[in-house]
Amino acid sequence: MEAIFVTEKLKELLPTIRQFVIDELIPLEKDHHIRPFKKTEIILQEKREKVKSLGLWNLHLPVAEGGLGLTLCEFGQISEVLSLAPYYGQYTFNCQPPDIGNTELISKFGSASIKEKFLAPLLEGKIRSCFSMTEPEFPGSNPVLMATTAVREGDVYIINGHKWFTSSADGATFAVVMAITNPDAAPHQRASMIIVPTDTPGFEFIRNIPVFGEKGEGWASHAEIRYNNCRVPVTNLIGEEGMGFKLAQERLGPGRIHHCMRWVGIAEKAFDLLCQRSVTREMEPGVMLGEKQFIQGFIAESRVEIDASRLLVLRTAHNIDLYGASQTRDEIAAIKFYVANMVVKVLDRAIQAHGAMGLSDETLLASLYQHERGARIWDGADEVHKQSLALSILKKYGLDIRKKTRS
Amino acid sequence: MEAIFVTEKLKELLPTIRQFVIDELIPLEKDHHIRPFKKTEIILQEKREKVKSLGLWNLHLPVAEGGLGLTLCEFGQISEVLSLAPYYGQYTFNCQPPDIGNTELISKFGSASIKEKFLAPLLEGKIRSCFSMTEPEFPGSNPVLMATTAVREGDVYIINGHKWFTSSADGATFAVVMAITNPDAAPHQRASMIIVPTDTPGFEFIRNIPVFGEKGEGWASHAEIRYNNCRVPVTNLIGEEGMGFKLAQERLGPGRIHHCMRWVGIAEKAFDLLCQRSVTREMEPGVMLGEKQFIQGFIAESRVEIDASRLLVLRTAHNIDLYGASQTRDEIAAIKFYVANMVVKVLDRAIQAHGAMGLSDETLLASLYQHERGARIWDGADEVHKQSLALSILKKYGLDIRKKTRS
Amino acid sequence: MEAIFVTEKLKELLPTIRQFVIDELIPLEKDHHIRPFKKTEIILQEKREKVKSLGLWNLHLPVAEGGLGLTLCEFGQISEVLSLAPYYGQYTFNCQPPDIGNTELISKFGSASIKEKFLAPLLEGKIRSCFSMTEPEFPGSNPVLMATTAVREGDVYIINGHKWFTSSADGATFAVVMAITNPDAAPHQRASMIIVPTDTPGFEFIRNIPVFGEKGEGWASHAEIRYNNCRVPVTNLIGEEGMGFKLAQERLGPGRIHHCMRWVGIAEKAFDLLCQRSVTREMEPGVMLGEKQFIQGFIAESRVEIDASRLLVLRTAHNIDLYGASQTRDEIAAIKFYVANMVVKVLDRAIQAHGAMGLSDETLLASLYQHERGARIWDGADEVHKQSLALSILKKYGLDIRKKTRS
Amino acid sequence: MEAIFVTEKLKELLPTIRQFVIDELIPLEKDHHIRPFKKTEIILQEKREKVKSLGLWNLHLPVAEGGLGLTLCEFGQISEVLSLAPYYGQYTFNCQPPDIGNTELISKFGSASIKEKFLAPLLEGKIRSCFSMTEPEFPGSNPVLMATTAVREGDVYIINGHKWFTSSADGATFAVVMAITNPDAAPHQRASMIIVPTDTPGFEFIRNIPVFGEKGEGWASHAEIRYNNCRVPVTNLIGEEGMGFKLAQERLGPGRIHHCMRWVGIAEKAFDLLCQRSVTREMEPGVMLGEKQFIQGFIAESRVEIDASRLLVLRTAHNIDLYGASQTRDEIAAIKFYVANMVVKVLDRAIQAHGAMGLSDETLLASLYQHERGARIWDGADEVHKQSLALSILKKYGLDIRKKTRS
Repeated sequence: MEAIFVTEKLKELLPTIRQFVIDELIPLEKDHHIRPFKKTEIILQEKREKVKSLGLWNLHLPVAEGGLGLTLCEFGQISEVLSLAPYYGQYTFNCQPPDIGNTELISKFGSASIKEKFLAPLLEGKIRSCFSMTEPEFPGSNPVLMATTAVREGDVYIINGHKWFTSSADGATFAVVMAITNPDAAPHQRASMIIVPTDTPGFEFIRNIPVFGEKGEGWASHAEIRYNNCRVPVTNLIGEEGMGFKLAQERLGPGRIHHCMRWVGIAEKAFDLLCQRSVTREMEPGVMLGEKQFIQGFIAESRVEIDASRLLVLRTAHNIDLYGASQTRDEIAAIKFYVANMVVKVLDRAIQAHGAMGLSDETLLASLYQHERGARIWDGADEVHKQSLALSILKKYGLDIRKKTRS
Repeated sequence: MEAIFVTEKLKELLPTIRQFVIDELIPLEKDHHIRPFKKTEIILQEKREKVKSLGLWNLHLPVAEGGLGLTLCEFGQISEVLSLAPYYGQYTFNCQPPDIGNTELISKFGSASIKEKFLAPLLEGKIRSCFSMTEPEFPGSNPVLMATTAVREGDVYIINGHKWFTSSADGATFAVVMAITNPDAAPHQRASMIIVPTDTPGFEFIRNIPVFGEKGEGWASHAEIRYNNCRVPVTNLIGEEGMGFKLAQERLGPGRIHHCMRWVGIAEKAFDLLCQRSVTREMEPGVMLGEKQFIQGFIAESRVEIDASRLLVLRTAHNIDLYGASQTRDEIAAIKFYVANMVVKVLDRAIQAHGAMGLSDETLLASLYQHERGARIWDGADEVHKQSLALSILKKYGLDIRKKTRS
Repeated sequence: MEAIFVTEKLKELLPTIRQFVIDELIPLEKDHHIRPFKKTEIILQEKREKVKSLGLWNLHLPVAEGGLGLTLCEFGQISEVLSLAPYYGQYTFNCQPPDIGNTELISKFGSASIKEKFLAPLLEGKIRSCFSMTEPEFPGSNPVLMATTAVREGDVYIINGHKWFTSSADGATFAVVMAITNPDAAPHQRASMIIVPTDTPGFEFIRNIPVFGEKGEGWASHAEIRYNNCRVPVTNLIGEEGMGFKLAQERLGPGRIHHCMRWVGIAEKAFDLLCQRSVTREMEPGVMLGEKQFIQGFIAESRVEIDASRLLVLRTAHNIDLYGASQTRDEIAAIKFYVANMVVKVLDRAIQAHGAMGLSDETLLASLYQHERGARIWDGADEVHKQSLALSILKKYGLDIRKKTRS
Repeated sequence: MEAIFVTEKLKELLPTIRQFVIDELIPLEKDHHIRPFKKTEIILQEKREKVKSLGLWNLHLPVAEGGLGLTLCEFGQISEVLSLAPYYGQYTFNCQPPDIGNTELISKFGSASIKEKFLAPLLEGKIRSCFSMTEPEFPGSNPVLMATTAVREGDVYIINGHKWFTSSADGATFAVVMAITNPDAAPHQRASMIIVPTDTPGFEFIRNIPVFGEKGEGWASHAEIRYNNCRVPVTNLIGEEGMGFKLAQERLGPGRIHHCMRWVGIAEKAFDLLCQRSVTREMEPGVMLGEKQFIQGFIAESRVEIDASRLLVLRTAHNIDLYGASQTRDEIAAIKFYVANMVVKVLDRAIQAHGAMGLSDETLLASLYQHERGARIWDGADEVHKQSLALSILKKYGLDIRKKTRS
């Protein structure tokens, strides 16, 4: 917690939520890897009802939609607390990605009929959704490159394409698919976002892709999908044709805050394990692990890097609240790579301090590393964000390379 | 390959072995994660016969035991080549850890009867063995701390204890167990090494421990074991009572060379994937990934660090050959942490350059990372080796802290 | 600037001060290394009068003492702006270390007579002072170790000792000397702070010590001093006997903020040079340095690390304002090593991007590096602060090593 | 020393040279910064005579020219030992850069008359020379960019240009100048190397450039020079017109070995100081600095990085001896950045371990840092060599960017 960012609303909310996470979710997570996923889903269903009854459901929504009208900066701080239960926290409060992003998107840009059909049950937590953008054949860092097409034929789009890392597709009711609708437009105006129900004929769920060896299941998985002549009504279009990149951009700003605060929460969890280990592991009679300077170095550096991350993210959220995401683009790029690297480093140090146990399943550390190493890759690799931040800064100094081949 | 270390023998052997690995093993490994392990074992059995028929079996053995009498420095270079097939290479040539270490040990210190009973079938490849030293309750970095006991009662030892990360126990015929036989002796003279057949009553195989989420099976696994009043004849003792640490030390010198060269081989494999990706992944029309300086940095730094590692390890092997392991202790400590860090870094860079694909199972990279992150922990964490190297150096400058509490 | 920390007062003050620094000081600094120091002092005397006439003199003081009553967090932001002229900024506004620390100290703990005699002219800028604590024979990281003594004899203290890195002693009117007065007290209650005028017989100014080859002069220097039977009246004692460490502690909290914000300012200056270079240096026809990813990496990482530093320091200052320095001890330790490392890294990157010019005197970068590399050493080396932060954290987890030998 | 590279010749030579350096030079260097340079030159003149009388003069030369016909790998090991006296070692044995490079060059490519006039006195140590290539206006990393011209007019070249970092120009008798003679040729065939005596009218010595604040003097300096219509006979051309880059390339291979081994020697010197400090500095009563793990980390990492550097450089030298510099280009690029970074890191750690003393002039560390930070910049910055190594590797994988704009 950073006092300077804690509002009156949060003073009330945060302790309640934290307690719920500690009492109801963290103990459950201990057996996450042992318990069958279906059973977990049933248990979490109860927890979700409990959250509803406590009035903590859909915290991220505006007042008009039944939420609390929190600022992004406020919600970010809740995200961190939820991530103390990194596997169940977000889902139990119905603010798990990619659903949170999809609801924000549809809420802003969806037609009334789409909202009724897809948004309402999503907000009630009756269904789940997924977001289908990345393609194996093209670099995610260059979103203009894409082969999936949606060809209009009368009142339907016919969609063909190959996507992967479509997170949470397993068990989802619909996908938001990014596809080229206007191949002859300017590069950034070629794609659109279209809702494709997963029971549409031609929607081929190929597999959940093992990520660092872990396939996952349900909302905690990343699928490979083929769209084979999927026909959906044109009314399934979100916004207008050609708005795909604009919408993706809209989705990313707050999404980065959610992700980054999740990483901050996970890092705090790892940090706590690191410290606990330091005071309980005896290295020689009477000498605790935490008395070793190498471990002290791990602790001190992790502490300051976690704090730096939280401050950077909350300040960015605050600025998005004030000035909007596009004015805050540089800060958003900066936190993406800084915080992603931080969480990977802190997890790695905590693993190292646990020795062989850190590699095993006796702590969550190895599993968290498996899930979060991707942080430096998802939504644009480190390298992409560093380049884009630098170029944006240099543009103010007069360098404009837009017309040049990038390097 | 480093010309300066390539001998006449190697000039003949290396190309043959490399070709075998490329033709027979690398293609097999592609399906390693899909094919049932039992089936893999059957296929590899054929390959092992082929290796025997080519006269390449047990290359690490002295001439007297049917090997080629290679120096450690020569065998190290073979280890690297075998590791181009990191899953099957060593096993197919019957020089996989921990069997290779156990054979070296028994060969040097085992009685005639032990050799006949345990060593002979090991060398023929008819059985496998494991090495049971680490205990969950004590830090591996301080081998003096240990709770497993072997109490002599007449002609038997009664063994009780709890071990984990007993690698390859799954399917092994016997374990070499480190246990306290002389609790009242000086700390480094308390333990002994005793052979415990895995069908001994009381030998409780608890489970294969998931390592970075991967349980493994057969020789490719790490088990948790309980020894519950296991009774074995005193003739199962290797060497003499109280020699446990001395034997462990003996085992470690060459063992480090084997491990480090395996890591060099794996790093070369990752480097090759990194370069292939760099020249085939198009980032923008006409611009390949390898044209990006960030990736060039990955490549240049990996290249020099791999080369440095190979030179350091082979020079250490060479010095062990000339002066013995105990004279070369500092170098052995140095390569342990340097090369372990190198392989983890190179794998990480290769993963990063592959983006989401690097996290998936479409390359071996994520799987290799899961297996090799432990390199920085097994056989003494980085931190332990750094401290021990520094203290050994400072001792020559007059600092002797043996009588002081370490820090 | 971080919007969240900018107060109404600062909105008015900061632009005025920034403009003064840009118009009056930065152009002067270009010839700093060429112009004789005495001449610089004369020029700056005029600038100091100008500052007074603008009402910007002694900004750090409480209202009661003629200052503006700024919070530490507010003044920190002024420190940063002053540091855009790293050589002259602080001095011109009469808030240069060590005088700023000495005035804070005497103002809080000095007797009325001391205040009249020493504080008043200091505040008017008529004299300068120095702070004499570090001894060459003992590690600065362990302030309890000290050989300088002040033996009371009637109404005088007789001071003997050997100090170095007594900053700004050259030309100072008095030194605040740390000396053992109570050798038999508990370790932290042995030392006192005593004012020793530099014209006291026995005050031996040995030399200005070259720091990274630069001797400096006047306030911009670090002296070696011997105290040979220096006799000063006991009324020169600040506070009470045995309070030396307590006072040093008091001095350090705000001092860290001043230093850290100075480093943030210097880093911004280096960052600006880095960016300017990136857009003006042509590497190949039509290709600017800033188009290279390696340089983009320098820029992106520097940007986020500078921002993280500023946020961490201002949040720490804010917490000191709210809760006092001793409650904020961990944060103060954290910023010391984090920000010191940041400024050294950013300077190093800016030098690297300038190539040979970066090593020369054609930019301020090499000179700033020479002066600021010490940041990682002054006031406790990185290693000391990391250990102390970690131990403080682990204490909350139950580890108390106060009674144990530290390691 | 690396046993594997020590030849019979070296077994004899190295101990003699090492003893000379220890007895005659290292004690002298203690006062290097205090003693007037002119006086140092006189003292070293005697030492140089002594070296001659011991038959150790011009060790780098082929037998035919009065040297010992050492291989590059052998001479590299001598370079390291000479660098234990980093200021005087090379000069005293007459193998200091840039003279050593100039003699190699003229010896291979100079006409008989040039050899007689310029090479002979250089080999006798009667004169010194300099090498004038880098220009402030162009990046050293792209040697094709250059503005200095040599226009032929009858029997003379008229040279105009602006150079800097012309090392050792102060007191040199002639400069080897790189200038454009054939502006219309292909980029790499435009420049030539021409000898310009420093007493040629129009040779304007502007100044010695302070490097990290240190101007230096005599051979230990880097000058800025203007060539204003300097007229020299065409016979002063080395090799042929347009061969400039080819000659520069020739010069660089062995030059890299000399530099890198010098850095290895300096790193050993810093390492020795680091260890001495570790065993003599008491941090708390009875606890030496070297007992702290942070310092142990410095020591262990430095040890392995120095060893890695030496192995990499000697193996490169060995390969140059066997296959020539152009076949060994990748290795030469690799050692340049790896070893330059190593020496800077080791110096930095040694400084840090010395605390304030490390910044002062009480050890050579700060001064060595000032001189050697440039290692990462001279002769191509890190970034340039990393890119060039990576591109050379990727070319073997099929990527050829020669026709593309580099990035």
